[in-house]
Amino acid sequence: MTLEKTIYQGPYIHSKSQTELDYVEKAQIGVNEDGKIAFINQDLISTLPEGWENAKIIKIPEPGFFFPGFIDTHIHAPQYPNAGIFGKTTLLDWLKKYTFPLEDSFSDLKKAQRIYNQIVSRTLSHGTTTACYYATIHVPATNLLADICLKRGQKAFVGRVCMDQSVDLENPDFYRDASAEASVESTRQCIEHVKSIDPNYDLISPIITPRFAPSCSMESMHALGKLHKETGIPVQTHIDENKPEINLVKETFPDAPHYAGVYDSAGLLTSKTILAHCVWLNPEERQLIKERDAKISHCPASNTALKSGCAPIRQLLNEGLTIGLGTDVSGGYTPSILAQCREALFVSRFRAMNDGDEAALSVEETLYLATRGGAKVVGLEDRIGGFEVGKDWDAQFIHLQAVKGDDDFDQITGPAELFGHEDWNDKIEKWVCTGDDRNTHAVWVKGRLVHMKNGVKF
Amino acid sequence: MTLEKTIYQGPYIHSKSQTELDYVEKAQIGVNEDGKIAFINQDLISTLPEGWENAKIIKIPEPGFFFPGFIDTHIHAPQYPNAGIFGKTTLLDWLKKYTFPLEDSFSDLKKAQRIYNQIVSRTLSHGTTTACYYATIHVPATNLLADICLKRGQKAFVGRVCMDQSVDLENPDFYRDASAEASVESTRQCIEHVKSIDPNYDLISPIITPRFAPSCSMESMHALGKLHKETGIPVQTHIDENKPEINLVKETFPDAPHYAGVYDSAGLLTSKTILAHCVWLNPEERQLIKERDAKISHCPASNTALKSGCAPIRQLLNEGLTIGLGTDVSGGYTPSILAQCREALFVSRFRAMNDGDEAALSVEETLYLATRGGAKVVGLEDRIGGFEVGKDWDAQFIHLQAVKGDDDFDQITGPAELFGHEDWNDKIEKWVCTGDDRNTHAVWVKGRLVHMKNGVKF
Repeated sequence: MTLEKTIYQGPYIHSKSQTELDYVEKAQIGVNEDGKIAFINQDLISTLPEGWENAKIIKIPEPGFFFPGFIDTHIHAPQYPNAGIFGKTTLLDWLKKYTFPLEDSFSDLKKAQRIYNQIVSRTLSHGTTTACYYATIHVPATNLLADICLKRGQKAFVGRVCMDQSVDLENPDFYRDASAEASVESTRQCIEHVKSIDPNYDLISPIITPRFAPSCSMESMHALGKLHKETGIPVQTHIDENKPEINLVKETFPDAPHYAGVYDSAGLLTSKTILAHCVWLNPEERQLIKERDAKISHCPASNTALKSGCAPIRQLLNEGLTIGLGTDVSGGYTPSILAQCREALFVSRFRAMNDGDEAALSVEETLYLATRGGAKVVGLEDRIGGFEVGKDWDAQFIHLQAVKGDDDFDQITGPAELFGHEDWNDKIEKWVCTGDDRNTHAVWVKGRLVHMKNGVKF
Repeated sequence: MTLEKTIYQGPYIHSKSQTELDYVEKAQIGVNEDGKIAFINQDLISTLPEGWENAKIIKIPEPGFFFPGFIDTHIHAPQYPNAGIFGKTTLLDWLKKYTFPLEDSFSDLKKAQRIYNQIVSRTLSHGTTTACYYATIHVPATNLLADICLKRGQKAFVGRVCMDQSVDLENPDFYRDASAEASVESTRQCIEHVKSIDPNYDLISPIITPRFAPSCSMESMHALGKLHKETGIPVQTHIDENKPEINLVKETFPDAPHYAGVYDSAGLLTSKTILAHCVWLNPEERQLIKERDAKISHCPASNTALKSGCAPIRQLLNEGLTIGLGTDVSGGYTPSILAQCREALFVSRFRAMNDGDEAALSVEETLYLATRGGAKVVGLEDRIGGFEVGKDWDAQFIHLQAVKGDDDFDQITGPAELFGHEDWNDKIEKWVCTGDDRNTHAVWVKGRLVHMKNGVKF
């Protein structure tokens, strides 16, 4: 796909640090034919670099701004049809009741196509420019998800789920890999497929995905650890989500010092490992994760819905761990990372009610986790997460409604409304706390327009 | 306003009990010229009652259903421009920093008109058919809010805020009534105004509104208690929201046994009193509130945002207290009661993490609080909260999107999507957990269409 050299004109906002946003009111960002940022003018006065005089200009209307695309560090694409359904369950019964039957049905490629198309549409519409997807155990459907992400232009890590053990004793052969060898062989097939459609993993990357320790034999985890070492392909899995799960790990792996130790002994805990949840890490686990430089995906909505617990994010940040946000659809009810920012605020406030005010995250911190934090978690901090020369143009055009007169009601722009007294901090708080996908008017990945809301013009 | 006899045809859902919903798949509900339900056919086979053969029929398309209008038992209308802004504050500094300066500006009627029109539009669009509004200390602006609600057709309790004491020691004369007498006299003026526009309080009712004990002198509360006894007009106030506030009450009223005792001694704690928050009631207070049959407004989003605490709703329900939901804009970030259902689910799950699973509310229970619970809280359980013959037609037409094919994306219907495998329980969970105002396609109050989403047809 050939891109046209483009200058994006308008305010932009991104994280300057974990606690501070940078607001640039009048800017021009030049994006070259490769979808990379070639220059940034932090005013409208400076002359354009040579060769940019006739570039296309996209100027966004007020009150709008550019924001880096969101990074969803943990999402189960096939579970999307169950988003919002969790009933009275917690993790282990939820898996058996809702999740495994749905995932099992992805042997039907037509069904997979419908659902994968829909979830990629939805995540793009919520401003997710990079997503770490868990697929199912099926090779063809997993490869289809990779194809769809490539076609739609979303950066994606696509993982075939490895699980050669059942956690359902009544149903020991339902929905699992036949053997440890089958787990690895199927994973290799998915890696080969991604290599064939995107040889440099420019947009799509495979990711080694042992579901979680209770559904993997030690043998399969060792083999996947070996594959990780051999290929350098990243790893994603779950850890310390809820207490019955942790007890199950203790029973299943009685010789391991703790949950993190299981992965570590298999060579699956490295700087390229993304650990979802981390609600109940013990001090030894935190220390080990820090030593290995493994990464954390915080999934606040899911952890609340399934009553898993409140991850101690302030503590994990203070200890220097690297954290991003994950929607964890469908343990989480929404594919929106913006909603995770709000949920992360709220979960941290619940911690603060017990642990003291310091535990509460700020709006700025949640946006950092959603962008620069996520970029580090997926190992792409040199390419995404903020606006700097040389980075990809992975961006959202966010628009809030300015209420003009009496009873002014814009159904396109949605509920985040400006009355005129708001400074930039207030605008950002309103967006995070009251906004939704209606505020995401357009989305680009590597310079390509991948989503535009109906009725939007620029 | 004259209404046309109308038969509403389609599925309807409402609360059968605190824990159960009633799903009627094919129904006809006849609404007479007074906006009241004249008959309900729970099938499409029964013959229509005499005189209804030629009535207008409104048939809603699939997958839609009728649901009772929501009741917001606690909302500060003038604070709407600050919805979503709370920064790093908790209750008392939030009042001083954000709230009082905004409320004070409602001496400007033009500003009041713009904001009140907008918040009434917004609450209607979220399906709120009855709202308990706090206005400001200003008589003209409070009367304007009553006028707007009447004109727009929303049932409303409109309270001029009484506060003759400052909680801001540095600013003791800013934004308060001049005296206890002024509090009462201004309240009387607002009562007279409502009487003049809606003599039988059919749609609009005044409500006596001492802001909260720390901002009221004992003298003013006694006088307002007397007014309550004399007129039978209901009362609304705040109680036990956060700990510094409770300490302030202890310091200010050292002779009172507890916070609830302050109101009780002034004659302000009766079966017509709505108490917002109730996060930290002690056992004596709970007992007293039960004896007085006073009502509770649970405001989960606000209590989390301001780090006030998690109200023990399961315990309060088990003790037989009467509870509804409140958005508490702008302590709460949204005027959506549907969002409060989700927040109430989540807050109860945080309680459950400590108190055990039993503390978790079900989706059905949150919808009960939002409708029948709220109806009892505002003393209108004979008129609203569910669909029965003789009740007002206060209803929402809810529509969820059925995903048809690949990449099907309906921007009108919003994010709550059906894939075809959902039963009614699943549909309701999806609505509560993933839905928003885009699912509220039309809203009626007492038979009058008061909101219809752009692009919707029936």
